[in-house]
Formats: sequence, C-alpha cells, structure tokens
Amino acid sequence: MRIALDAMGGDRAPREIVRGALAALREVRGLEVVLIGDEARIAAELAAADAPARRVQIVHSDQVIGMDEPPVASLRRKPRCSIMRMARLAAEGQVDAAVSAGNTGACVAAMHKAMRRLEGVIRSGLAVTLPTRRGECIVCDVGANMAARPEHLYQYAVMADLLARHVHGFQKPRIALLSVGHEPTKGNVLVKDAYRLIEPATTLNFVGNLEGHDIFLGEADVFICGGFVGNVVLKVTEATGQGALRLMQTQLQQAVPALFAEIAPHWERAAAKHDYATYGGAPLLGINGVFVKCHGASGALAISNGIKVAARFAENHVNDLITECLGSARMPTAGGRLERSS
Amino acid sequence: MRIALDAMGGDRAPREIVRGALAALREVRGLEVVLIGDEARIAAELAAADAPARRVQIVHSDQVIGMDEPPVASLRRKPRCSIMRMARLAAEGQVDAAVSAGNTGACVAAMHKAMRRLEGVIRSGLAVTLPTRRGECIVCDVGANMAARPEHLYQYAVMADLLARHVHGFQKPRIALLSVGHEPTKGNVLVKDAYRLIEPATTLNFVGNLEGHDIFLGEADVFICGGFVGNVVLKVTEATGQGALRLMQTQLQQAVPALFAEIAPHWERAAAKHDYATYGGAPLLGINGVFVKCHGASGALAISNGIKVAARFAENHVNDLITECLGSARMPTAGGRLERSS
Repeated sequence: MRIALDAMGGDRAPREIVRGALAALREVRGLEVVLIGDEARIAAELAAADAPARRVQIVHSDQVIGMDEPPVASLRRKPRCSIMRMARLAAEGQVDAAVSAGNTGACVAAMHKAMRRLEGVIRSGLAVTLPTRRGECIVCDVGANMAARPEHLYQYAVMADLLARHVHGFQKPRIALLSVGHEPTKGNVLVKDAYRLIEPATTLNFVGNLEGHDIFLGEADVFICGGFVGNVVLKVTEATGQGALRLMQTQLQQAVPALFAEIAPHWERAAAKHDYATYGGAPLLGINGVFVKCHGASGALAISNGIKVAARFAENHVNDLITECLGSARMPTAGGRLERSS
Repeated sequence: MRIALDAMGGDRAPREIVRGALAALREVRGLEVVLIGDEARIAAELAAADAPARRVQIVHSDQVIGMDEPPVASLRRKPRCSIMRMARLAAEGQVDAAVSAGNTGACVAAMHKAMRRLEGVIRSGLAVTLPTRRGECIVCDVGANMAARPEHLYQYAVMADLLARHVHGFQKPRIALLSVGHEPTKGNVLVKDAYRLIEPATTLNFVGNLEGHDIFLGEADVFICGGFVGNVVLKVTEATGQGALRLMQTQLQQAVPALFAEIAPHWERAAAKHDYATYGGAPLLGINGVFVKCHGASGALAISNGIKVAARFAENHVNDLITECLGSARMPTAGGRLERSS
C-alpha cells in the first residue's frame, strides 16, 4: 500500500503532516508514504524523527496553494503545487491513494483535473465523519458539489453506504436524507425528489428523512444532503460543539479555578471527541481514484487516521463496488423501476 | 398592549404557558394577555397561581393541533384549534400580537391564512435568535419558506435588519449571507444571486458572505439564508451545543462525581446559555401582524421572553418600518439600481 501525502497542506504543515505519516508507518504493515512538498523542509522533519528510510519517499514540489487561495485560479497559476503533484501521482497509478489537509476546493478541483469520475457517477461528493452521542456518522456531501440534483443525492446514498460498510465497518448502515421534518412531503424540492429516488432502492437500509438534530443524536449512520447544506452543517457542528465546551471551560476556570484544575485531565479527554481535527478525514466519493481530505487544522493523529482511512478504502476496493452499483448507470425512477440514465 | 397566547402550544402546555404569561404580566406594565385553549385547564392553572384577573382573558378553544401533526391538513380538520383562534384574533386587530410555542408549520400556515403579507413583501421569514460566544445573533429564515429565491433573501435582510435595530437594540447590525466561503463567487446559485441584490443596498451594513462556524463566533449580528438551510442550522446548533455539554457532564459525573457535584451550580448557570428553550422566540417577518414563535420545549421563562419580544415588535411599529422600506415594492437589481418589482 503506497500513499501520496501532501506535506504542505494544512495549518500545521509540514511538521504535523510528516509526523502523521511516521505514526501511520509505525502502525500499518506494508505501508509506504510519498511525501510531496519542499524537499529540504520535509527532509529536516524526517531527520528530526526516526524515519524508516526504505518506506518514505520525497517528491519535491516548489509551489504551495494557501488555505484561503481561490482554488481553480491557484491551480492554474501554480501547476507544480503539492496538491496537483499528489493528484497526478494518484491518477497515474503510482500510488494507491492520496491524502491532503490542504485547501479543500483546490484538492477537489485537482483530483477532478487529474482523473475522471468513476463510470456511471454523475457528481463526486465529500463524505465527512461527525461525532454523535453514540459514536460517529457519515455526512455526504459536505461541499464538493454546490448544484446538487436529486440523482446526485441518490448516488451519494449508494456510495456513502459502501463507504460506511467497507471502510467504517457498519453492518447495515442506516441511511437518512437530511431534511426539515420526517414526512416525505417535508423539505425543499431537492429533498422531496431525492426521497422518491432513494426510497425504492432495496439495497439501501433507508430510514427516511431526518432533521438537523438527528445528526448529533446518531439517529442514522449516514446523512445525505446537498453540498451547500452539508458544508454549513459541518462548520456549524464544529464551531458549536467545541465552542460550547470552551465557553463552559472559561466560565468554570473563572468561577472555580482550583476545582477546574482538578477536573482538567478528564476534561481534555472528553473534549477530544469534539475536536474535529482528530477525525480521519473525508473521502471524495465518485472519482476514479482514492482521495481523503483531512481537516485543515489536522495534527499528526488526524493525518495518521486519514492515511488509514485512505488505505482501507483502497484495500477494500470500494471504487470497484461503487462501479458495480452505479457503473451500469442504472438510475431508479420515482416509480421504483430501474432505468438506464442518459 | 394586548397579546394573544396559544395556551395549548408546546410540549409543556398549558402549565408553563400560563406561568410564562403571568411572569410577563408581572414585568410589563400595561400588558394584557388573552389565553386561548381549554378553558377549564387554563382556569385551573390561573387559580393555582396568583393571576391578576383584570389583565387576563380566556378564549375557549376545544381543538388542539399536536406538535407533530401535518400542519395544513390539521388546520383544515381542526378549524377551531387554538392556533387558528389566535391567528384570527391577531388578524381582526383584537390583539396587538400573537405568541405560540406550538406546531411551527401550523402557526405559519394559520397566520398566512388569517392575514395577508405586508405590502411589497414576497415571502415571510422566521427570524430566530441563536447564542454566540459574544452574545446573540439573528438567523432568518429558519423554515417559513422552503423555496427561497434571491429576492426573498434580499427582503429577509431588510426585515431582519429592522428587527435587529428596533427589537434587539443593535445600533448598526452587521448583516451577512450564510455561505460556504467569504468570496462572492462561493456558494450556490441562490446565495450568489442574493449577494448581488444585497451588496448594493446602502441602508444595510452588509459584511458579505460568512460560513457556518461564523454564527457561533458571532462574526455578524444577522445571518440571512434560505429556510431549508436555516432550519437545519437551527436544529444542528441546538443539538450540538447542548449535546456536547451533556456528554461532558456524563463523563465527568462518572469519572469524578464528587468534584462534579461541587461544580454543578456553576455548570447549570453556564449551560443555560445553550438552552434554546429559554430564548425569546422567532418573529415571523413580513406578515401584516405580529407573531412570535417560541421553542416547542419552552418553559415559563421562554414564553415570558417571547411575549416581551412580541410586545417590543408591536410597540416599535416594526411592520410600519418594513412597509416603508419594502412597501413601495422597490427591488434593487444586480447592478445596484432600484426598480419597481413586478
């Protein structure tokens, strides 16, 4: 298993990215990592650690796309950037998967530029993992596609179901549409039409429409939504969970500093659950390759987790399974029959 | 000031609703409340408390719409329900404002059935208050309108600006569009087109596009979005903030029960900030009357706060101000000129 890692992507690159790679190498047998970016800086980080030279390769890249740069324009201006290098290595089959904590838009655009979508897939979707009170759930799409159509949501449901089964280990993942009420008549036109496509799909354990609060309550294992809503949900979730805990912490530290100091170690452990930067990243479903996007604030743990997700995705041939389900380009119609899509 | 209160609406009706009314009566001089619902039950609650008989009236209603009933069908089946009675009283001018913690869809439908929209207003919008790390902000629309158009968002911005100024006391409210990035080119078609309508409006302190996490960070005082996204955001925010605190509480209680018991009183106080059931409710902007929707889980405090919001809204003639701004039916075009809308 050989994975390309964008060593320059993310707020804490390259140090935490390199450390994450080394952590993954220690844990995953047979893993090799290709670190892409400023060779001197990467080499310095490797030298500082105890890197297994045989299993690490550096591919130099002298351009970096910043976290806030406009994705498409930057890719045009910086064709030799680490993200594009990574995408090309994946497209050429020189690696089994690619991982980056860099500029999300640039990553998605680069992957699409370097490789096609899988046969039968209309639009790709980013599938992130969010914490619930019971464990974790998957939300797809969280921002790859700003013009979601019902047939895209149907395909996200099929792809995220396979992701949940074959990467996250769910036996029979409960798939829900994110809406504003439980009834199929609730929601906007997109969700109502998507419901009619997803509901007849007998391979899916579709539990119907769920609402915003059901994500945290863990009422489904997979939540399907358009990329605009999903992106807003992702960012709201992140800020609100961590923010509520931080406000509480500040208030307790002011009110009862000595007591809080005693509680602090337990606090840290429990708060980590709401630190999205530790989660294993979001696979871009539907492209003809494996790419996992890690959180921009990723530290070594998150990067190592992202590498493992990418490795499982590649190892378990999730893309072959997606092609089996969607490659014949079958789209259910609202009546439940299967038809060849145009 | 005379306010109609749906005594049967909400998970804790009628007791907490009646108690909320009494709390408001104690605090607001010149306030009168019309309690609508089961006369015997309301009278029993009033008798149990020390109600100022002169300022409380009961209007009997023998039908109640449950929290989860389909709104429009229920209104048709139960024409004498408390929500419809309340809406009619407001439409007939027998009260200055109406307040309910009941079925949101039924409330919105009943208000629309009983009264027209304000002159020039194309669609109404629900404007909720959410906590931020700095205080509070307004989010509009959170679910009145599932088919948002750019011109609706423009009008929400104008109306929510007036709400923020004249009810919530903001001097020069910062208005933002909820999107997935700061650049005007980011987002879906709805947001991009709305940006072009809102940006040239010189009366608004428009700060541009903001993202999901900026709500909790308090980066604007007013966030404008379509009703589908807004409703999901509202429910995600609510579940995630309270949920994170509850998980932490459980873990601390298990790990260090004695220490947590000492902290508990401070915990309760700080956690109340994330209890959305205590917030003062969401005015329905754009209708020819005043209606405030309180949280379904509202207790007496939330109801009393909702009554106060409704009273300030009526007292400060916010609807006249909305008509002044939108009544001439001026819609800015993308180029910034003002035009009569069709």
